[in-house]
This record gives sequence, C-alpha cells and structure tokens, in this order.
Amino acid sequence: MKPSEAAAECGGDPWKECAEVAVQLARRAGQIISKALTEEKRVFTKTSAADLVTETDHFVENLIISALKEKFPSHRFIAEESTAAGSKCILSDSPTWIIDPVDGTCNFVHRFPTVTVSIGFAVNQELEFGVVYHCNEERLYTGRRGQGAFCNDKRLQVSKVTDISKALILTEIGPKRDPETLKLFLSNMERLLKSQAHGVRVIGSATLALCHLASGAADAYYQFGLHCWDLAAATVIIREAGGVVMDTSGGPLDLMSCRVIAAGTKEMAMFIDQEIQTIHYRRDDEN
Amino acid sequence: MKPSEAAAECGGDPWKECAEVAVQLARRAGQIISKALTEEKRVFTKTSAADLVTETDHFVENLIISALKEKFPSHRFIAEESTAAGSKCILSDSPTWIIDPVDGTCNFVHRFPTVTVSIGFAVNQELEFGVVYHCNEERLYTGRRGQGAFCNDKRLQVSKVTDISKALILTEIGPKRDPETLKLFLSNMERLLKSQAHGVRVIGSATLALCHLASGAADAYYQFGLHCWDLAAATVIIREAGGVVMDTSGGPLDLMSCRVIAAGTKEMAMFIDQEIQTIHYRRDDEN
Repeated sequence: MKPSEAAAECGGDPWKECAEVAVQLARRAGQIISKALTEEKRVFTKTSAADLVTETDHFVENLIISALKEKFPSHRFIAEESTAAGSKCILSDSPTWIIDPVDGTCNFVHRFPTVTVSIGFAVNQELEFGVVYHCNEERLYTGRRGQGAFCNDKRLQVSKVTDISKALILTEIGPKRDPETLKLFLSNMERLLKSQAHGVRVIGSATLALCHLASGAADAYYQFGLHCWDLAAATVIIREAGGVVMDTSGGPLDLMSCRVIAAGTKEMAMFIDQEIQTIHYRRDDEN
Repeated sequence: MKPSEAAAECGGDPWKECAEVAVQLARRAGQIISKALTEEKRVFTKTSAADLVTETDHFVENLIISALKEKFPSHRFIAEESTAAGSKCILSDSPTWIIDPVDGTCNFVHRFPTVTVSIGFAVNQELEFGVVYHCNEERLYTGRRGQGAFCNDKRLQVSKVTDISKALILTEIGPKRDPETLKLFLSNMERLLKSQAHGVRVIGSATLALCHLASGAADAYYQFGLHCWDLAAATVIIREAGGVVMDTSGGPLDLMSCRVIAAGTKEMAMFIDQEIQTIHYRRDDEN
C-alpha cells in the first residue's frame, strides 16, 4: 500500500486511526480478560501439554479481528488462534494486524496476574505501531514508529547497562518441553547466571517481559519458541524506547523466526548473543 | 509472654493492635519504596555479587523498627539488614517482629515492578500474623492465625491442584551462585518441567511469590536460600488461605532453616519434596 492511500484511509496522518482503534480494542479485550480471569475456565492443549488455550483466547481474538475487519476491510490478519486453526502465517506488503489475544495463557489459566493483549501492525513488512495492554494492572504500553514509546502516557526509555554483571535478564521457557530443549534452555540460563548477571526472571508473558525491557526494568530478553504475535507490538515499543531487537544470529530481527534477543544496548544484546545456544523451533511461516 | 499480658498490652484481642500497626507501617514503608523506585540508587553487595542492598533497605528497616520499639518497647526484632550488620537472629518466646523491609531488592534496584514489604510477628515461637505489601500495585496481603487471609479485604484461598501436570510452580534462584548451587537449582527446575508442570516462574520476590500461592495463582513454591524474614509473614497468609508450608525434608517448617516447600495441597507439597534435591545453605540462627 502506498502512503497516499494510507493517508486517505486513515486520515492525514497515515495509520493514526488504526493506532487509535488498536488502543480501544486492547482496552476492551483487557476488560473481558480481567473479568474472565476470576471465572472457571475450560482449558485445551495445542502443540504440547504446556501450550494452552481457552475459550477466552478464541472469543477475544474473534472480537478484535471482526471489529478491525469491519473498519478496515482491505487489511490482513495474523493471529495466534487463527494460525493454530490452520490460517497461513504470511507477512505480505498489505497492512497487516498481528495479534495475540491473550499473551500468558498459562498464567491466565492459573489466575497468575501477568496477562496481556498484544496488537501489532505492519505495512510493507515494516512494523508501524504496537499496543500491549497489561490486563491486571490496567497498564497500556504503546509505540509508534518515529513517535516514541509510552506506558499510560509516560515516555519509556530502555536501560543503558552494557555490563552483564549489572544486568537483570528476562526469558521464557517456550512451548517445547522435550529433554533436549529443556537442557538447552537451562544451559542458557546457567551461562548467564555464571556470567554474574544479577538475576534471570521468568514471568510467563513474553510480551509483558519485552515491555518491562522497554521501560528499563530489565536489561535484556532472549527467547526461542515465541511467535510473531508475541513480538510484533513489543518490538515497536522497545525500538521507540531506544532499544535493540535482533535475531539470535546477531543479524536483523526476522519476525517469523520464532527467536529473539532484545536489549537496552547493542553491547548487551551482543553479549547475550555470544553466550546462548540456539534452540531450534519451526518458523511461523513454514507450512 | 502469657496471653493475659498480651491482652493487656494490645487490648482485649491479643495482638490486634500489633497487627493494625503492622498494616500501617507496611503501607507507609511501601509509599517510601514506590517513590524511591524511580530514583537513582547507590547499590552495595552483601554475601555475593547478586545479594544487593540499598540505602532504602536500611532507611525503611530503621523506620519500621523505631516505630515499633516506641510502641512496643518489650518486643524483639529480627530483620534483614540488622542481621546483615551482625545482630543475632534468634527466635525466643518473646513477641518478635520478623521484618524484610524490601523483599526483591534486586528487582528494586532495576525498577522491575515486583517489590514488597514483609512484616511477620511470632509469640512463643508461633507465627501470629503476617502483612505483605506489594508496593507497585498497592496490594496488601494479610493473615492472622485463626482469622483467615486477605488481599485488600478479599479472602484468599489456595488452589486445590494435586496433579503436577496441571500445576504452575514458583521458585527463586537464591543468593549463592557457585557452579554446584546453580547446577542443583537448574536440575530441580528441570525435574519439575520434565514432570510436565505447566510452567515454572521466577519473579524475584519470594514473599510476593508466596502470596501468589496463597491467592491460588500458583500451586507450589519451593526454595533454598531464603530467610526467616522472607517466610514469616507469608507463612501465616498461606496457612490461613488453607495451604501447606513445610520443610524440604517433608517435616514441619523450620523458620530458621533457609528452605521451604509451600503448596495448596499436601499432595502437591509431597510431590515437590520427592522431586527436588537439597541445596545447602547456612541456617539463619547459626553463628
């Protein structure tokens, strides 16, 4: 899509209306999730016994997508539960919404209070904005390309720490739990703790962990086995807060690669890159 | 101290006034910590490079203890920073306040939003009440022996999960970071993940993790290397929410042993007990 068409569709400022609608929908979804958090849930598994889904994930995803389709009928969608149900996960040049209706589903199932809604938006395969809503604490994280990142209107700024011995690191376990994957996951954690990192935290929501990184509350994040819908919104927020989001190979981020290193500084990102070993996951856009 | 003396000192209901003062002080301390959270900090290390302390830890501990000494001059105190400075850590039969001024100091240093104040109270070596204040979210957890546990006046109830494959487990790394300790810590995590636990979370505040357990948001907690001031308040809260707090040997909790298993059910606690290997830490009351 050309910028002139976008400007015509979304007002003089391309994608402004889209970003505003994303905020409204994230808040509305967050209210539904908060309410559902206290209720009994029927839980189903997907790729592994630890990869969970509930009726709320489906309900919220349908709500977000149907509202967006009505407003922006030409746009495309990549979303967690649609993909699990067989939709292809391909990022074209079309304006594309990349949605995780409930990030931290396992937390949600347990009423562990770290659950978010994540809505990212890309045009010409470039991320334009991201909205992450932390349901339990009513904190809204937003980032728009070239316009900064915010948490409830407070500007976000990543940490400037370059030395691992002064760093707090975040990661997540990922859905695969075979012995080889677990060994690599734990070995990576061991390497960073042996490097005298202050600590490693595992909070069960990749998206919120990435937002903590954007706010300077941690110095690096790495993970294998997360998806484009975990990454899309938070990537804009981190970059607009001054941070680095890159592939675990040290190269540019590949949104479909299911792996990431994010950090406040390039030095910290490169340190993590050199320490950790790769855990292989299938790409999001693999058939 | 005899109950009649206690009733005389604290009103008709023994320890009622003490519990009320604890709530007031936890809230006041929490406000100071929340304000300090956004400011620059001078950070010092204690037993290891990962065992941190700030001026706020000292300031808050002095504030709490001096207020309590004025009100209850005959009472005794065990508190994190006083102990680090050389005070003996002995639990006698006297009414004793057991205080962690800033639980999650590493989080506090990084502005990672999981920091609590913890105030426990024991008489005749029995825990009478506990107050934990989650500074960032203004959530007050309280428990009083025989009177239930609450979070901001909402009654707490532990989970009833007995099956590890439906469980969310919490733990913390602990201050020791030598290779042998790290190996055991990671091996314990591996055993629980191989048992198909839904997940393991590490949030950087033992006290808050224990309160999550009390609220049913997780099914078990275990740790080696935590202290009596991490455990005292939360233990009352968990027990009053219907949960189990025990030693990692399977026997009764030993508050000074620097190790714990807590769970919603006895079955879950015993499962964890059988899976994990002991990591040796010096007792709190060892000279």
